[in-house]
Amino acid sequence: MEKPTLTRETIQMALDTKTKPPGSLGRMEDLAAQLAMIQGTLRPNVDQQRVVVFAASHGIATEGVSAYPSSVTAQMVRNFTAGGAAICVMCRTLGVQLRVVDVGVDDSACDLGAETPTFRRIPIRKGGTSSFLNQTAMTSTECQQAMQAGADEVRRAIADGMQILGIGEMGIGNTTSASALSAAITGLPAETLVGRGTGVDEATLAHKRQIVRQAVGHHAEVTDAAARLACFGGFEIAAMTGAILEAYAQRFPIVIDGFISTSAALAAHAMQPKVLEVCFFSHCSAEKGHKALLEHLKAMPILDLDLRLGEASGTALAMPLLKAAASILSDMATFDSAGVSDKCSA
Amino acid sequence: MEKPTLTRETIQMALDTKTKPPGSLGRMEDLAAQLAMIQGTLRPNVDQQRVVVFAASHGIATEGVSAYPSSVTAQMVRNFTAGGAAICVMCRTLGVQLRVVDVGVDDSACDLGAETPTFRRIPIRKGGTSSFLNQTAMTSTECQQAMQAGADEVRRAIADGMQILGIGEMGIGNTTSASALSAAITGLPAETLVGRGTGVDEATLAHKRQIVRQAVGHHAEVTDAAARLACFGGFEIAAMTGAILEAYAQRFPIVIDGFISTSAALAAHAMQPKVLEVCFFSHCSAEKGHKALLEHLKAMPILDLDLRLGEASGTALAMPLLKAAASILSDMATFDSAGVSDKCSA
Repeated sequence: MEKPTLTRETIQMALDTKTKPPGSLGRMEDLAAQLAMIQGTLRPNVDQQRVVVFAASHGIATEGVSAYPSSVTAQMVRNFTAGGAAICVMCRTLGVQLRVVDVGVDDSACDLGAETPTFRRIPIRKGGTSSFLNQTAMTSTECQQAMQAGADEVRRAIADGMQILGIGEMGIGNTTSASALSAAITGLPAETLVGRGTGVDEATLAHKRQIVRQAVGHHAEVTDAAARLACFGGFEIAAMTGAILEAYAQRFPIVIDGFISTSAALAAHAMQPKVLEVCFFSHCSAEKGHKALLEHLKAMPILDLDLRLGEASGTALAMPLLKAAASILSDMATFDSAGVSDKCSA
Repeated sequence: MEKPTLTRETIQMALDTKTKPPGSLGRMEDLAAQLAMIQGTLRPNVDQQRVVVFAASHGIATEGVSAYPSSVTAQMVRNFTAGGAAICVMCRTLGVQLRVVDVGVDDSACDLGAETPTFRRIPIRKGGTSSFLNQTAMTSTECQQAMQAGADEVRRAIADGMQILGIGEMGIGNTTSASALSAAITGLPAETLVGRGTGVDEATLAHKRQIVRQAVGHHAEVTDAAARLACFGGFEIAAMTGAILEAYAQRFPIVIDGFISTSAALAAHAMQPKVLEVCFFSHCSAEKGHKALLEHLKAMPILDLDLRLGEASGTALAMPLLKAAASILSDMATFDSAGVSDKCSA
């Protein structure tokens, strides 16, 4: 079923008939308009909301780039499925469905249990990626598989009647992976992109920058976006890239979380610049490089709350605002219907 | 029943046991901590949410300071009670209760109907305030009555089992009233405080500034906060001031909307500086003077979405975030309970 095409002008005209001074709902009107364009209707609706957290382990974590041991990735996945993590309580509180997808978590020291309706296990490689310091994080086949796992989640969300999908991640070491991928794509220096992640000290931060510089230098000959994604990983980043590309193909609204999710958007954008049409950037993270990536993509984040957790937490928090934005177009009275006088004539 | 007193340190210790890097939920942790302090519990809960819109007509509107005719105030109140306004659809979408209080709307050309369970009519003066250009907007008795009407709403919210209250307003001409009140209290110039309100043109903006300058000069001898409130009005601003003072007296969380609501917080703060302990500033408005008022109060707004509608719309949008903030403290697992490893030792 082909969706109708609406121009921003048509939508703005509809917004301006609503009982409010023109433009007085600011960014909420932009969000409403973008939802209307994606859904091809002047009555957009994103009441059915889901968030997916993709999790994977990272070979680069062995280089000592994180404040937490790599084993925390599997432990946090267990915390997700048990309902105790930040994203779990936020989703419950805000009426958002939550799914967790293991795309390559090293569970050798922590049993993650079997699949459930809200926990999918499709590990692309059991132990996680290789360290990208001197080799590629994954093979190109693995990268395709991870992207497919992400795309599957968009199709599944649509099949399940969802109207919008938030994406985020868990993976100790993945700010290093996202920094290297982003440096390769944007050409921005490690100083701009590498931040404290989960909270590394000054010495580890310097070391992390050096790792990123070295890795980007080592793989300088890789210039294709898909090859870069495979080169720097991780599986959860590739899955999010696949999800974004599929959301564009399906004209389905997708909500991006913080720095790592945005690096996936950057990779997707390098493959298909139009993906931004369906992307909502939920927040500007406190993680150093995020602002630079948002500026590179000319993306306007919805929230700015100094978050730096990941787990798609920013997407969950933006969901009620997106729902409310849709309701402006769909449910508000017009000056005519409400019998309210329009502006005094000048 | 006396609420226990918790220090910020105690609360931060509780936050730091939760399964997330310390501080990684940024401003959400501050909001959680403030809610915990107000409610005197490490398991705060603000799931039961209500917004009250206070409406009143303004004598100053006869000076030609608005882009809309004064009759729009009553028309919009009818739109509120009919469910078609922005605040109505946002509250419905976000699961927030809505009440509307007529504290002095000129309904001579627009019948507002009888009271209902969600629409209270307690007009302090039927036709609205007097123009404060050469006289006071209201008498001190009227000001007390309006403040009482606002305080009533806080007590009623508590009696109805609400856990948090958002306040906002409707009143054509009230950015002029709020600008004059704020100029008198802060000493800031009209240039800083007077903005476009509902969207006046350049000439009207200059005229509006002149009106504010003239009125503030005329009433320069008035220095008491309550007298200033009576002097510059309006009834809805006085009602919000009363609500904020009562929220402080009851240790009840109250959410402030934009420029006009913040001018009420300014007046309440001038009477009792500790009121800020219970205030949440929902957003930074696009209305020119709002940022200056927030800075004057050292208040950190939650959202920044270029809103300039009023109607408590910003408070409705902040409500889900406050609910989610409470859930971080109340519902998240700890490192211990979830079996997640804490930071690598340095």
